[in-house]
Amino acid sequence: MSRTDHDMLGQVSVPADAYYGAHTARAVSNFPITRETLGDRPHLVVALATVKQAAATANAEVGALDRTRAEAIAKACTEIRSGRLHDQFVVDLIQGGAGTSTNMNANEVIANRALELLGHHRGEHSALHPLDHVNLGQSTNDVYPTAVKIALDSHLAELLGALGLLREAFSDKATEFSDVLKMGRTQLQDAVPITLGQEFGAFAATLAEDEQRLAEVRPLLHELNLGGTAIGTGLNARPGYRERAVAHLRELTGIPTLTSAPDLIEATQDVGVFVQLSGVLKRVAVKLSKICNDLRLLSSGPQTGFGEIVLPARQAGSSIMPGKVNPVVPEVVNQIAFEVIGNDVTITLAAEGGQLQLNAFEPIIARALTSGLAHLTAGIGVLTENCVRGITARQERLADLVCTSTGLVTALSPALGYETACALALEAHRTGRPALDLVRERQLLTDERIGALTTPQALTGGPAG
Amino acid sequence: MSRTDHDMLGQVSVPADAYYGAHTARAVSNFPITRETLGDRPHLVVALATVKQAAATANAEVGALDRTRAEAIAKACTEIRSGRLHDQFVVDLIQGGAGTSTNMNANEVIANRALELLGHHRGEHSALHPLDHVNLGQSTNDVYPTAVKIALDSHLAELLGALGLLREAFSDKATEFSDVLKMGRTQLQDAVPITLGQEFGAFAATLAEDEQRLAEVRPLLHELNLGGTAIGTGLNARPGYRERAVAHLRELTGIPTLTSAPDLIEATQDVGVFVQLSGVLKRVAVKLSKICNDLRLLSSGPQTGFGEIVLPARQAGSSIMPGKVNPVVPEVVNQIAFEVIGNDVTITLAAEGGQLQLNAFEPIIARALTSGLAHLTAGIGVLTENCVRGITARQERLADLVCTSTGLVTALSPALGYETACALALEAHRTGRPALDLVRERQLLTDERIGALTTPQALTGGPAG
Amino acid sequence: MSRTDHDMLGQVSVPADAYYGAHTARAVSNFPITRETLGDRPHLVVALATVKQAAATANAEVGALDRTRAEAIAKACTEIRSGRLHDQFVVDLIQGGAGTSTNMNANEVIANRALELLGHHRGEHSALHPLDHVNLGQSTNDVYPTAVKIALDSHLAELLGALGLLREAFSDKATEFSDVLKMGRTQLQDAVPITLGQEFGAFAATLAEDEQRLAEVRPLLHELNLGGTAIGTGLNARPGYRERAVAHLRELTGIPTLTSAPDLIEATQDVGVFVQLSGVLKRVAVKLSKICNDLRLLSSGPQTGFGEIVLPARQAGSSIMPGKVNPVVPEVVNQIAFEVIGNDVTITLAAEGGQLQLNAFEPIIARALTSGLAHLTAGIGVLTENCVRGITARQERLADLVCTSTGLVTALSPALGYETACALALEAHRTGRPALDLVRERQLLTDERIGALTTPQALTGGPAG
Amino acid sequence: MSRTDHDMLGQVSVPADAYYGAHTARAVSNFPITRETLGDRPHLVVALATVKQAAATANAEVGALDRTRAEAIAKACTEIRSGRLHDQFVVDLIQGGAGTSTNMNANEVIANRALELLGHHRGEHSALHPLDHVNLGQSTNDVYPTAVKIALDSHLAELLGALGLLREAFSDKATEFSDVLKMGRTQLQDAVPITLGQEFGAFAATLAEDEQRLAEVRPLLHELNLGGTAIGTGLNARPGYRERAVAHLRELTGIPTLTSAPDLIEATQDVGVFVQLSGVLKRVAVKLSKICNDLRLLSSGPQTGFGEIVLPARQAGSSIMPGKVNPVVPEVVNQIAFEVIGNDVTITLAAEGGQLQLNAFEPIIARALTSGLAHLTAGIGVLTENCVRGITARQERLADLVCTSTGLVTALSPALGYETACALALEAHRTGRPALDLVRERQLLTDERIGALTTPQALTGGPAG
Repeated sequence: MSRTDHDMLGQVSVPADAYYGAHTARAVSNFPITRETLGDRPHLVVALATVKQAAATANAEVGALDRTRAEAIAKACTEIRSGRLHDQFVVDLIQGGAGTSTNMNANEVIANRALELLGHHRGEHSALHPLDHVNLGQSTNDVYPTAVKIALDSHLAELLGALGLLREAFSDKATEFSDVLKMGRTQLQDAVPITLGQEFGAFAATLAEDEQRLAEVRPLLHELNLGGTAIGTGLNARPGYRERAVAHLRELTGIPTLTSAPDLIEATQDVGVFVQLSGVLKRVAVKLSKICNDLRLLSSGPQTGFGEIVLPARQAGSSIMPGKVNPVVPEVVNQIAFEVIGNDVTITLAAEGGQLQLNAFEPIIARALTSGLAHLTAGIGVLTENCVRGITARQERLADLVCTSTGLVTALSPALGYETACALALEAHRTGRPALDLVRERQLLTDERIGALTTPQALTGGPAG
Repeated sequence: MSRTDHDMLGQVSVPADAYYGAHTARAVSNFPITRETLGDRPHLVVALATVKQAAATANAEVGALDRTRAEAIAKACTEIRSGRLHDQFVVDLIQGGAGTSTNMNANEVIANRALELLGHHRGEHSALHPLDHVNLGQSTNDVYPTAVKIALDSHLAELLGALGLLREAFSDKATEFSDVLKMGRTQLQDAVPITLGQEFGAFAATLAEDEQRLAEVRPLLHELNLGGTAIGTGLNARPGYRERAVAHLRELTGIPTLTSAPDLIEATQDVGVFVQLSGVLKRVAVKLSKICNDLRLLSSGPQTGFGEIVLPARQAGSSIMPGKVNPVVPEVVNQIAFEVIGNDVTITLAAEGGQLQLNAFEPIIARALTSGLAHLTAGIGVLTENCVRGITARQERLADLVCTSTGLVTALSPALGYETACALALEAHRTGRPALDLVRERQLLTDERIGALTTPQALTGGPAG
Repeated sequence: MSRTDHDMLGQVSVPADAYYGAHTARAVSNFPITRETLGDRPHLVVALATVKQAAATANAEVGALDRTRAEAIAKACTEIRSGRLHDQFVVDLIQGGAGTSTNMNANEVIANRALELLGHHRGEHSALHPLDHVNLGQSTNDVYPTAVKIALDSHLAELLGALGLLREAFSDKATEFSDVLKMGRTQLQDAVPITLGQEFGAFAATLAEDEQRLAEVRPLLHELNLGGTAIGTGLNARPGYRERAVAHLRELTGIPTLTSAPDLIEATQDVGVFVQLSGVLKRVAVKLSKICNDLRLLSSGPQTGFGEIVLPARQAGSSIMPGKVNPVVPEVVNQIAFEVIGNDVTITLAAEGGQLQLNAFEPIIARALTSGLAHLTAGIGVLTENCVRGITARQERLADLVCTSTGLVTALSPALGYETACALALEAHRTGRPALDLVRERQLLTDERIGALTTPQALTGGPAG
Repeated sequence: MSRTDHDMLGQVSVPADAYYGAHTARAVSNFPITRETLGDRPHLVVALATVKQAAATANAEVGALDRTRAEAIAKACTEIRSGRLHDQFVVDLIQGGAGTSTNMNANEVIANRALELLGHHRGEHSALHPLDHVNLGQSTNDVYPTAVKIALDSHLAELLGALGLLREAFSDKATEFSDVLKMGRTQLQDAVPITLGQEFGAFAATLAEDEQRLAEVRPLLHELNLGGTAIGTGLNARPGYRERAVAHLRELTGIPTLTSAPDLIEATQDVGVFVQLSGVLKRVAVKLSKICNDLRLLSSGPQTGFGEIVLPARQAGSSIMPGKVNPVVPEVVNQIAFEVIGNDVTITLAAEGGQLQLNAFEPIIARALTSGLAHLTAGIGVLTENCVRGITARQERLADLVCTSTGLVTALSPALGYETACALALEAHRTGRPALDLVRERQLLTDERIGALTTPQALTGGPAG
């Protein structure tokens, strides 16, 4: 069963029960690239409906749109924002046209649902038109980036929540392991002592910094070009519309810092905020990957590796090696990190490809950012719950390693001089004898002095050293 | 309704009607990252079933597996290869564990289907075991990369098909436009004449080279580590198994060049072939993006741009600017290219992260490559059918531009000397007068000489100059 | 002529007149990679000397170092900071060892120069030792990143200066061109009118935002791990040393915001600040590249391109095409941008490769960042002086194009309805007749109404629309 | 002292003793970006001179150039090819203009040296002109890429030489360590036994594959567009010139496979060969980085790491930790690899930015490729000589680890069944008792059977399993 809709190129057949129309149908046919649709990004669908609702209400207030139509549009948008009709957002996430098909999909679904609410049939565009009414005073070029920014803000809030929990999990472990002395390593070579608590505390501290960097990006997402229409000159938007539309957006989203960009022409063509966000996501990815590398290294073994910590077993590790348990959770986070880092290059290329008054490649930017944010959020959640919280220390082994390490010589170096200490370390390493024994044997330092220089407190200082 | 299955970590509840079991269920719970599952990559599911079938038959032949079980396994695999049970491949494409969950998912589905075929219930693993029988003589570490390579070969065949059609479409246009003289441009500045046919012929030629590069990568995918088991030493594989398994793979896949890698230890840890394939895909992406940039540039306008060609209108271009038509098909291909280029960085990081006897990050490599290949194939198909085949030339405008261009001076430069020609060009540009008029007026060259130097044939030579 | 020096591995011959010693000589032999030496980065050499001076003075104040040696060290450092002895910093910029060779090079040059100042010969380390005295209470792992951050701050100041001048040059052009009406373009297709001043104003606005982002990164560079020594625990640094050393650094550098990181262990292993800076540099690169792409596009022609602006001629464009002038300055900036974007990937990999208590790959990070900053600064300077300041508009051509464009239909669309406007645009395009003529001919709108809707003010609004 | 030269923009002052002229001087002033000049790439200077010589001789043979001038040009080129006058190649490696300044620099130096050889003064261009004679029948657009390809071929030959020596060094170690049994690891967890010889043999094997991939790229560099002139149409090149010029190039370079591209228009605009080469270099970089990561991991310790091998000590590792030795050689190779991987992104962006009949960004491509090749070659040389050749095994430790590992259970798994083997491994791990003891104690297998399953031969198979 189908009905006929039309656009500037002629007539198009659409499924009878579809809320979308001709423009959407053409886009579906033009872009059969992935199987991911707009409907797979609920935050974006909701953001689009929110922008459309704010615009309709603002248009009514400035006299550009009659109350009846405005209210019907607002009601349709409210339904979508509550999760309805998302299956009608069917255009592919990778699409040409700078987001026009996404905007058209929203215009058509909202118009047809509003028509129903007004007692009309879908497609009776003379009564309420997707472009003349739903899109009134708007252009894809201001609606689409506005909606993308609001959707990203939602994703970012979720990521920040997940990161906070992971940071807390590491902090808890820092406390739990605060008395566990171990050898620190630089360049994978034995260095000087540290506590396992300090090691986990550094993970918490580094994530806290990333939360700050992400929080700094967030306000940049709140600077909107809505009201700039096609190229930022505001052509066809009524006086007063822009201010009111943004005010309604603030109210509907609950984000009080939403505001108009000072230069709407610049704001229309520039995608710098997405590059900035992607750069910070990449930073988060780099740090998470480094942390996961460390967790995999510290838990390597059980017999022939570092063997300092044990990660919770989550599944059988091998189809051929019985009893093997692998660090599958850090491994999945590593891979998400690699994806996010690759996405950053994709976004960079798309951003660099903008020309003159518009960047036509925002759809791939939006897809890469929303995927990356969602995958990071999911991966961080798994890492927190299924790995970090259950980590235990192999304390006996850690203590043994500290005792046999030549790294303690460093603590005596100020007293002995670098060159003497050096010779001792080399001898200890060559003979396999503990360096402290050699110091005592040759009476280079008194036992008292050695003891004072090698207390855990003297050795590991503390965070502020 | 659920049933209980178990693995080394204990009991797990799985849906009663599921063919997968405990290992798969744990993996689903451990990796809730994307919504893309193994079942969304039919080529990979088929390849897994093919490998399992070849292994079972080979195991039977070398006496490691009884005929009854081997045949049941083979029959289950045949069903999967024909498209059945793909919805049972439910693990996330981004997963930790180096592909173990993917292999386990296959082992479990195949075992349970084979059990049914033998008249048992799912889960009766004493009769036929996912590991002891389906995975016999195998490890994830040889099965998984083998299956990935075979799946990539299928994807690559599709990409080559699509590229060939695009190349032909450009060739057809080269013929159609072989007499259309126009100005060539270097660095976006008017250079010397060319035909539009030559311009489109270069697109065809450059794609033909990419087809060659892709064809050269393909045999590298045919070098397998099947039979190397856990780390390439072949531990637990029966003598003769490896040769027979690969022979059966050749037969089942119809790829006669499948062969064992000469050093199975190297082949188990190395992902160089994926890096190589990704590098060539990136090259294809770069060229496609350049071609699409050119198409967008040549069709820019209609009034204020280059305006040399017209792309077929596919959809209304703007929600606010009536009548605007945008180059949406090249734009979508640009974006796929950016994705593929970003994927290459993801794959690079994953490859660099391999450690010792294995690369744990093959799942993200497999995901990035299969996505990239599929999206490129789809985008190229759209570009061929919905854009290139319908391109037309604005011949009158092209001819006008040739006549007024100072670029013709270059053709007279050998006769005039570079410095004289230079002064003429600058004067022509300053005064707006055609350079040839100035040459005639000053009798620098005879009309006959000028004519001979500026015939279309003299100006554009031909492909081989 | 040579003298003999020694280190833990034995004796090494160094040139007699060299201020560096055994450690440096070994590093020169170990790392013959590029021909770029530490001495090619004056900001880094100066920063190293500044850190060493601050450390020596602080060590004297806390009683760890006698006044005589401290003052000799400080004097040697002052000389280096004034530009002397830079040719003694000979280690390759790409080096293993996490910067140890760079630190050793500084220790040795400073020690030998201080020895001279004290009346000793170079190499008389019993009198003043590169490690026991110059490096006292320090580790490469705190000195090196501290010096790199201070050097980057100097580079960043220069970049900000250059960016400010470029922004001003664009602003001046925005004023100069404020009355030049032209067609805007989205997706390279004619859109709606804009002024050339608005177009250049957007370039200024977008660079102003980048200046802000760079300014936000700067304080992150001021958080130091000096005093953390080997792994951040502060082992072997005297109480009070850290606070005093940082205080002296503030004084010597004139950067009042230099401060100790709250978690020195995290600060020692983390390179997040470099990733952040690189991400913002990449953003600057992306924007500059986009601007240069636009300048090349707008100046394309002179006959067969957009031909809207003219860039100053800087050199003959072609060895074969007389009179050709190319946009060589934007082209060089594009290439610097590509370099910076590639560097970001290099830095990402190096950052991801950090392990446990240290990142061993800071040298390549330092090289990539300092190169990128210097090249960007140079390129921006050239762009400002040799290109932007001399740009002129082809006003007649711009005005002609506005008159003939169908883009004006958009301005009438609210009055006509989208579908009617659409039909008119298509007809205008098909027949080649101005769309406004068709509107008048059919009396769809009065002349008065048309006039009001198409004044330059109505068409282009203004920055705040 | 200076002399005056001129170009189309007017007069320019150049140093009196300079062989370069006005075009070069302007370029030096226009591109003050890096301090790296064309003269820092001897292979490229030599290649330019070679192309110019081939062109002059060919032009003489087809009657386009008199013998006297041709011979003078050839003689000047021969001098440059022998290493003279390289200091006259002063343009910056990062330059706008698609290589025109590089070509002009060569034209001017050659012309002025040829003038001297003919008894004229430098700058007497009426006697022999840089453009009319040295550049006769040529364009930057065919000369420059031709020279870059020939230079890259020289660089590539050097890289292949270095790679071959590294492969041999690993092969030698494979032989040396062929009897050293050790535990293999997958995902950093104990897997099954392997020999250290097999491990090093895999490094040799993987490099051999890279040598093959590089060798496959090489012929692609031999396909030239020389004779295509400005855009590939061959405008202004005499009939017969192209064939003869390429023939002379074959002779002068000794590369018999140099040939003309079949489509010169495509060959002029396409930079696919550089993308391909960069992709393969990236693959080499990825593998080298993985190998270096493994070497660092295997040598980690000496007490608290894997401690399986010892790398030769090359320098003191720390300024604060006496006796510490770091894996500085693998670390420097890691960093070169990161640089090469970043360069690949730079090259990708430059390649994607090509437009219509030319890619204006070849200079940055040439710089990135020549740097990467040179740095890789240097780093590989250091790795071979200063690291790999001196690696020793800690055999006792390796043997101990094999005995205590639960990984041996895998070898018994086919005999015991996966689930029984699994339970044994978990118990062994929990109790710390060797798994084989448990098997014997419970008489699950006879001693004879256990012995047969765990001989070194049975455990490690061999390359072909």
